[in-house]
Amino acid sequence: MLIVLVLGLSVLALAVAWGLRGYVLRQDNGTPDMRKISDAIQEGAEAFLRRQYKTITLLSIALGALIYVLYAFFRTPHPDEPAAGTLALTTTVSFLFGALCSGVAGLVGMYVAVRSNIRTASAARSSLNKALQIALRGGAVSGLFVVAMSLFGVGLLYTILNALHFAPTKIPLMIVGYGFGASFVALFAQLGGGIYTKAADVGADLVGKVEAGIPEDDPRNPAVIADLVGDNVGDCAGRGADLFESTAAENIGAMILGAGLTLANPGLFSPEQVVGVMLFPLVARAFGLVASIVGVLLVKAREDEDPMQALNRGYMWTAVLAAIGFAGGTYWLLNPPAHPAAWWHFALCGVIGIATSIAFVYITQYYTEYRYRPVKSIAAASVTGPATNIIAGLAVALECTALPTFTISAAIIASYKLGASSGLTHAGLFGTAVATMGMLGTAAYILAMDTFGPITDNAGGIIEMSHQPEDIRRRTDRLDAVGNTTKALTKGYAIGSAALAAFLLFSAFLDEVAALGSPLAAVDISKPEVFVGGLLGAMLVFWFSALAIGAVTKAAVSVIKEVRRQFQADPGILKGTSRPDYGTAVDIVTIGALKAMVAPGLLAVGMPILVGLGFKVFFHVGAETVAAFLMVGTIAGILMALLLNNGGGAWDNAKKFIEMGEYGGKGSPAHKAAVVGDTVGDPCKDTAGPSLHVLIKLLSTVTLVLAPLFV
Amino acid sequence: MLIVLVLGLSVLALAVAWGLRGYVLRQDNGTPDMRKISDAIQEGAEAFLRRQYKTITLLSIALGALIYVLYAFFRTPHPDEPAAGTLALTTTVSFLFGALCSGVAGLVGMYVAVRSNIRTASAARSSLNKALQIALRGGAVSGLFVVAMSLFGVGLLYTILNALHFAPTKIPLMIVGYGFGASFVALFAQLGGGIYTKAADVGADLVGKVEAGIPEDDPRNPAVIADLVGDNVGDCAGRGADLFESTAAENIGAMILGAGLTLANPGLFSPEQVVGVMLFPLVARAFGLVASIVGVLLVKAREDEDPMQALNRGYMWTAVLAAIGFAGGTYWLLNPPAHPAAWWHFALCGVIGIATSIAFVYITQYYTEYRYRPVKSIAAASVTGPATNIIAGLAVALECTALPTFTISAAIIASYKLGASSGLTHAGLFGTAVATMGMLGTAAYILAMDTFGPITDNAGGIIEMSHQPEDIRRRTDRLDAVGNTTKALTKGYAIGSAALAAFLLFSAFLDEVAALGSPLAAVDISKPEVFVGGLLGAMLVFWFSALAIGAVTKAAVSVIKEVRRQFQADPGILKGTSRPDYGTAVDIVTIGALKAMVAPGLLAVGMPILVGLGFKVFFHVGAETVAAFLMVGTIAGILMALLLNNGGGAWDNAKKFIEMGEYGGKGSPAHKAAVVGDTVGDPCKDTAGPSLHVLIKLLSTVTLVLAPLFV
Repeated sequence: MLIVLVLGLSVLALAVAWGLRGYVLRQDNGTPDMRKISDAIQEGAEAFLRRQYKTITLLSIALGALIYVLYAFFRTPHPDEPAAGTLALTTTVSFLFGALCSGVAGLVGMYVAVRSNIRTASAARSSLNKALQIALRGGAVSGLFVVAMSLFGVGLLYTILNALHFAPTKIPLMIVGYGFGASFVALFAQLGGGIYTKAADVGADLVGKVEAGIPEDDPRNPAVIADLVGDNVGDCAGRGADLFESTAAENIGAMILGAGLTLANPGLFSPEQVVGVMLFPLVARAFGLVASIVGVLLVKAREDEDPMQALNRGYMWTAVLAAIGFAGGTYWLLNPPAHPAAWWHFALCGVIGIATSIAFVYITQYYTEYRYRPVKSIAAASVTGPATNIIAGLAVALECTALPTFTISAAIIASYKLGASSGLTHAGLFGTAVATMGMLGTAAYILAMDTFGPITDNAGGIIEMSHQPEDIRRRTDRLDAVGNTTKALTKGYAIGSAALAAFLLFSAFLDEVAALGSPLAAVDISKPEVFVGGLLGAMLVFWFSALAIGAVTKAAVSVIKEVRRQFQADPGILKGTSRPDYGTAVDIVTIGALKAMVAPGLLAVGMPILVGLGFKVFFHVGAETVAAFLMVGTIAGILMALLLNNGGGAWDNAKKFIEMGEYGGKGSPAHKAAVVGDTVGDPCKDTAGPSLHVLIKLLSTVTLVLAPLFV
Repeated sequence: MLIVLVLGLSVLALAVAWGLRGYVLRQDNGTPDMRKISDAIQEGAEAFLRRQYKTITLLSIALGALIYVLYAFFRTPHPDEPAAGTLALTTTVSFLFGALCSGVAGLVGMYVAVRSNIRTASAARSSLNKALQIALRGGAVSGLFVVAMSLFGVGLLYTILNALHFAPTKIPLMIVGYGFGASFVALFAQLGGGIYTKAADVGADLVGKVEAGIPEDDPRNPAVIADLVGDNVGDCAGRGADLFESTAAENIGAMILGAGLTLANPGLFSPEQVVGVMLFPLVARAFGLVASIVGVLLVKAREDEDPMQALNRGYMWTAVLAAIGFAGGTYWLLNPPAHPAAWWHFALCGVIGIATSIAFVYITQYYTEYRYRPVKSIAAASVTGPATNIIAGLAVALECTALPTFTISAAIIASYKLGASSGLTHAGLFGTAVATMGMLGTAAYILAMDTFGPITDNAGGIIEMSHQPEDIRRRTDRLDAVGNTTKALTKGYAIGSAALAAFLLFSAFLDEVAALGSPLAAVDISKPEVFVGGLLGAMLVFWFSALAIGAVTKAAVSVIKEVRRQFQADPGILKGTSRPDYGTAVDIVTIGALKAMVAPGLLAVGMPILVGLGFKVFFHVGAETVAAFLMVGTIAGILMALLLNNGGGAWDNAKKFIEMGEYGGKGSPAHKAAVVGDTVGDPCKDTAGPSLHVLIKLLSTVTLVLAPLFV
């Protein structure tokens, strides 16, 4: 019954998303001039996605085959488990299905996003509210599709295996492949998109602004379309895949912990209630979807209002409705008669999760908005040149790890203690899992706000390039500024949820290892091998970031060369008499980005496998070492991602602050210095940082899937 | 008997150092012009040290009193332990004695270093070999004093407590305060010196080179003397305190492990042999001192030779002699008749340590010398401006963590396995300790090479400012270039030894907790509190780095303001007709640096205490959480220090590479971009990075000393 509710609500959300798609497509799509630009963006984005998903499909099939072989032939199944062939099949199929669902969600979201930009631009010619609504609803298609597809996929797999008469508590471990498939696609989507967007951006800026002296978003720059495409493939498709992964991995991880909880409390739950505990994460997510739909539809702005306030109102509605649904869910499903206080303990865990997400949003704002000390200090340091701008930014980036760490620490311990005192046995870890579910409850709305960013950014570009009047530009500029904020906030939210989800996934890994018959007494980092595992995990984060940043440089060089070639081959381009060849520039970034994403991607997938197998074969401590690898790697990943994201955001806004007239304004030496900082921050905040969110979760899902090989 | 040998050899080393001091002071001290500059440097350095040590003395006395109170009144002594009053007294006295010895070593080393510079400069007028020998022997005074004082201090405390009839195996835990005293002084010496040197450097460069357009080391710049002073107080005094701490903490930690080893193997060693095992670290260090003395005295260069080769020959002699002495020591002292293979297992551990130090030297060279890919990639990226220079440098800095991590991982596991297979029970961790001792065997020579750096740098400055002929300048430039290399190598060595020593100190902490009657079964980071401890430890590294880098900026601003004031007050300064007021500039940096060092210093000392006490009081897992805090903090510290040190070194040499004529040479746009990278790298490699070495060890010593409060 419960699963029907879950599947029903996720189908409902998909239907609403489809309806919003129709709403967006029905809107006016502007003048022919505007359409020419928008079509070029569409073409570029879709060409990139086609090629990217082709690469990802091939990689996924190869990895799927490997998983099948490893599961079928290289592990000794535990007596309690299904047969090796069955498990190999379900794991591989879930992996491929997870990859497929993530891909579909990404494609649909992108399809609508690149069609929303021109309609937002067109609406901006008459009404701010109209433009805001189109951009948000266009973004909501992506947000709803991502969360609903992830929910639907897990629900469907559960239904099928249930129909095949597998015991409910066994099912989560049979479908962990789904989360890994989602992670795998997310890694490459975020890496490829992140590299693309920044290679195009840095390349276009360096050769356009610095060498040729033409402004940003100038149609004479052959890389300008590639730059606009980049906003879509990086922020929209990349972050969508990121949060798809978060919800998928967290759903399955929480189901594993739910199964563990019912086994640890035998006799407390009836068989039907056992299913309720296990499906609680899915139900909570489904309620969150409904809350997000309501929130999105309620957003409406007055013409003279700050659009951010309108978005915030929608968010508050979503958060409140999600919290109510969440509390209702705990009362309904986590309420064993023997422990009447349990449900509200878990409801409070959910509140902690929601509070954590709000805290992350405020901390991110403090470190990246120009109203506060950090960004102001960077702007002030720009007066003495680029070197002091970079040093000040570095100090801010390093410092900004402190408050989120305290927040996460408090959330983990508080929800653990709440769970542990719920009356149920071994419910502490389940408490942290419930907090994570609470935090992810508003994911669809957050993602709608995130995709709002590239849509309004593109709308601004279209207005600029089609030479619309000044007051319309001012309207899209306002929306664009809000979009920059929402993008930054989403990154804060994504890293916060990754941090909380990670703890849930560790626990799921340990539960799985225990289910495989060799429970770990501890993950003891005072053992040399385990300590080394932790050291290697942390190092992976540094090395991976190096490769991601290096990849941007490599891909940007190819853009620069192409633009220089076009300027030389046809001097008419710079004079504005010939049209540059946007398509070739788009192609070149595409090829460059896809080539550059392979090395960091393989490192991320390969290293945990090598560590697990290596330490198992040589030192017989595979599982424990991998656990330390995962946990310390996650710690380093959280900190490094915060550093890169917030550092980049602060540099960006320090530049914007100066452009508003501080320290000499646009064109002043301070502004030039701030532009350097902004450029440095770009690959940090849009490539390496977001890719680290994915890396953290990938480490968890890859170890979950391959745990049987490490034990 | 054995202790007499140790004390005798350390007194011998002190005597040799005193002799070298006499040798240096007897050398010709140049022309009056040169003396004027050198005297100003001397004065500035000594004024800084006086004030700095005054601050440090006050802080040390306050902390000493706190330690006494905590030990005497706030802990319940374990039945096996000496009385609370006794333990409080020995711990406090050792703490103050450790602080004092570190201070004395720093002062003597600096006294000679600031007198060696002018003598090196003067000798450079006639002979490269002579100049090289003076600089190295001047540096060796510092190197020998640091290592011999640290050894002598531990030896003396042991002798006294032994004479008071305490059981030998109890003594190490009674004198852990010595290591903490050394760490405490080292933290402030390195922080204060590091902030001073970079604030002066960045400040002088920004206002001199950028604003006034005068070259580096130009006597018209009022901050130029402060800049030269900075090289001494940062590199010489700072690194000296750093390695003093390494050897002191490692000596005591290894003695604790030695005591644990004899207790774990009852009946295997006679009471006399027990003392031998415990004193082995001191004997090995004493042999290393003798080897270093021989190495230093053998160094001699032909006029046409690369001085680096001469230094390398000396290092090789030292390494070989130290290895022979080390192997002899294991045969003599770690050779229980029942296990005839044990000694050579431990000798091999020592070889692993020495090999690790050599590997670190090569890896550091690869990442920071312009002959190799990393620095070349930064230089190439400078062509497209400062932003790409910084991005490329960031990628190199992140990447350079990989190889050292593999090296350390291999060293820890190999030495552990060797120790474990020596035949003795529980000897694995002792094996890693022996490897650390091997690595630190050549510390005195390494430190001599390090202090060689600021001496030759200053010599170059004196030659430049006293307008000596071009060919003499070229000679000092060659020495200066070698000095830059040796400084970078020492940092690699220091972080490598800190990483290895950390593992030894963790184990000592766990041994101590066990000795306090509540052994930890594991440091289990899958427990939420313990995981949070690890997260907080890693975050401390980021936050501390932020404060250290921010401190440089703050202190640099005061320099800039003062130089601008002088330029404005007396236009004759820039024309070269009036002499600037060097003294005031020196004073201002001194005050700024000492003020700025307090916040990061207190954070580093306070946070482990707060975490330990907080988690003990609230969650009853103080010791285990602190252990995770320490271990994960160490992992993050190692990686971040590598990033900051090697990144900074690579930026520096990318600039030098361009100055040699690549990409347009000096004054080209690429050069300007590379100067930005160099300036950004300065506080990274000379303030934050080296301070992190100290932080890592301080975390260990503070937890060792305060462990009784956390249990």
